Amino acid sequence: MEFRLIDRISELTAQPRDDVRLGIGDDAAVLAVPPGQELVVAVDTLVDGVHFPRGTAARDIGWKALAVNLSDLAAMGASPAWALLTLTLPDADRDFVEGFAEGFASLARPSRLALVGGDTTRGPLCISVVVHGFVPPGKALARSGAKVGDAVLVTGTLGDAAAGLHALQHPVPAEERDSKLREFLLERLNRPTPRLAAGTALRGQANACIDISDGLLADLGHICQASGVSAEIDAPMLPRSSAMLDLYDEASALHFALSGGDDYELCFTVPSQRLAEVQSDLARLGCGVTRIGRIVEGEGVRVRTADGAWLDSQQQGWDHFA
Amino acid sequence: MEFRLIDRISELTAQPRDDVRLGIGDDAAVLAVPPGQELVVAVDTLVDGVHFPRGTAARDIGWKALAVNLSDLAAMGASPAWALLTLTLPDADRDFVEGFAEGFASLARPSRLALVGGDTTRGPLCISVVVHGFVPPGKALARSGAKVGDAVLVTGTLGDAAAGLHALQHPVPAEERDSKLREFLLERLNRPTPRLAAGTALRGQANACIDISDGLLADLGHICQASGVSAEIDAPMLPRSSAMLDLYDEASALHFALSGGDDYELCFTVPSQRLAEVQSDLARLGCGVTRIGRIVEGEGVRVRTADGAWLDSQQQGWDHFA
Repeated sequence: MEFRLIDRISELTAQPRDDVRLGIGDDAAVLAVPPGQELVVAVDTLVDGVHFPRGTAARDIGWKALAVNLSDLAAMGASPAWALLTLTLPDADRDFVEGFAEGFASLARPSRLALVGGDTTRGPLCISVVVHGFVPPGKALARSGAKVGDAVLVTGTLGDAAAGLHALQHPVPAEERDSKLREFLLERLNRPTPRLAAGTALRGQANACIDISDGLLADLGHICQASGVSAEIDAPMLPRSSAMLDLYDEASALHFALSGGDDYELCFTVPSQRLAEVQSDLARLGCGVTRIGRIVEGEGVRVRTADGAWLDSQQQGWDHFA
Repeated sequence: MEFRLIDRISELTAQPRDDVRLGIGDDAAVLAVPPGQELVVAVDTLVDGVHFPRGTAARDIGWKALAVNLSDLAAMGASPAWALLTLTLPDADRDFVEGFAEGFASLARPSRLALVGGDTTRGPLCISVVVHGFVPPGKALARSGAKVGDAVLVTGTLGDAAAGLHALQHPVPAEERDSKLREFLLERLNRPTPRLAAGTALRGQANACIDISDGLLADLGHICQASGVSAEIDAPMLPRSSAMLDLYDEASALHFALSGGDDYELCFTVPSQRLAEVQSDLARLGCGVTRIGRIVEGEGVRVRTADGAWLDSQQQGWDHFA
């Protein structure tokens, strides 16, 4: 039963790996972790209308379902290896499966990720992906290692996905230029790029790392809580795309950058003596990186505006079961 | 967000394992596969009203969600180690979570299984579990190794879960005795026992193995297809519980035993020269085992009745996306 859909996705993502001893088609997969590597495992579920807007193209859903999981591996500094996929579908829709598989495969292939198992059931559209990766022993990046004095950095730009979602939900008659900007933001919402190369480059360099899925304030807050520290953010330093700044006023753009989810950039902390090295390492990978603040004593995250005042940050990331 | 429910379940299933380097609470778990072991990974999803009847007690759902996955490990001859859980719930119902966790934990604990990650989202009730286990290199039991001349065996009794589901869906005014029989069958439906000890005992002994989730005919059919062989079953040999035989006529009982899903017994094939040894090994573990037929040349599964006639077996196991 489960084989037909999963088999089709597997065909499209075909990726031979020596460490897959037995792949799809038995009761379980049999896999060999390379000697001297620890296994890193993450799982994330995407529900229609919750984690992606209803009506999102199948191929974007396929990409995103894998991307949000690879982003967890990136945040741990792990290299991807294998995935399992569970798909709940209202019906066995051939077009959806083809599109989904195409999107999934277009990210799996360059990530050298093999699909090794899965399960399909009939029900409301819901996708759960489990990814496995490797990291040298003791080198995984945790949330709990941030130290007072560390610099706080982020990759890429913040708030684009939230701005894209807003744009989608508030369509306006578009001039040509606006529509290109919107497309950029929608691409950021639908096709996030997991920062895998940046994650592995941060092994042994970052003290703490997380990926931004729930918004900067919420996710940096997780680092602070796990590390027993506080963070100060300088609002003017937040990296924001010109597309977002062109389409939205300053207050909205700041809100998206601080509280918008779904960017899947990395937020991490680095001791000041390693700052220059880390910045140049990531730049060499073509990964934008910006210092946005510092770790201090205390708890929680505070944001300072351009005029030196502290922002009232009731605005937090969203929380499915708050 | 995902931490509160999963944390609670983790508390209740608490299970220290040295091979868990970083458990719940970060972007991913970090795990160490013991040297000289291969990793076996399975995933199964349970949807409300599809894989368990609506109204099933939370603690039975918790047990079953784990049991069906451990059954996949058993079918591979693997020993359980870690699980991840994704739970989609209509609302954050404290009672449901406590009951679910209790059921999950009551099976996880004796299985020495640690919960290392998870994800919760709001939506229609749906549970997906990923289990990881270990097997010595090359010793995993696959579906594809059945050979002509092998004996076909099953553990336990067949058809009880399907009979239990039928009893649930066709309530009758119960005499005291009947109600005990029904309870037995419902327990078999709601609390299947993964045959883990039997599975590891079959390493190096069975040529092929599968767990019976879709019904004997369907699952033995998977072995035949993967192995390029056919199987002949002797209907009078099928092990059936006295509870089922007391409550149902012969035709129904035979149908449940051949086509009923959800028993989670093992079906496996053994070369005749190892038959006696395997039977006594499993008996020593307290696991009932019955020889029900043989592997022959050809394809598909055929069933011979007591009078020597071949059964017309249009009846197959159920198939969610047939």
